[in-house]
Amino acid sequence: MAKDEMGSTELDLADWRAKIDLLDEQIVKLISERAVAANAIGELKHRSGLPVYEPRREQTVLEHVKKVNPGPLPDQEIQHIYERLMDVMRSLQRKS
Amino acid sequence: MAKDEMGSTELDLADWRAKIDLLDEQIVKLISERAVAANAIGELKHRSGLPVYEPRREQTVLEHVKKVNPGPLPDQEIQHIYERLMDVMRSLQRKS
Repeated sequence: MAKDEMGSTELDLADWRAKIDLLDEQIVKLISERAVAANAIGELKHRSGLPVYEPRREQTVLEHVKKVNPGPLPDQEIQHIYERLMDVMRSLQRKS
Repeated sequence: MAKDEMGSTELDLADWRAKIDLLDEQIVKLISERAVAANAIGELKHRSGLPVYEPRREQTVLEHVKKVNPGPLPDQEIQHIYERLMDVMRSLQRKS
């Protein structure tokens, strides 16, 4: 590969990574807002004696995120990410 | 628990869940934009013969998201979610 081709690849990579860094800041902010809401729900559940683990609600969440998935990730991969996200939220609720 | 207390808990739960549904729509949108960027990077890597798996870059991403984490999730849980997210992005890049 010619030297300036390599240089341009590195530049493009840097641009895309800068974009990813900005997206990550927004993603972390929204996940954190989601955690605040999950905390509030956890407290409501504790006060009302409701169980933390609600498989039907988790199923509804998964159906919702797959329904609004615009691509390019396959639904299955969105589900894969959300399963981890809900694991984390559930462990937060157990502590609330 | 009195009947109207239970009713108000259910209402609050419904409100928080509606909020979570809206947040999820935004999270899925941003994850999808991140996947578009990861796809573009995957194509650049293939064209330039660079490896898909770059542990140093993944480390940088993890440090970044932990640095911008406003709470209430512990850094370790943000990392836990991002490890899954990067797994998914990596498998997308291998296909690009």
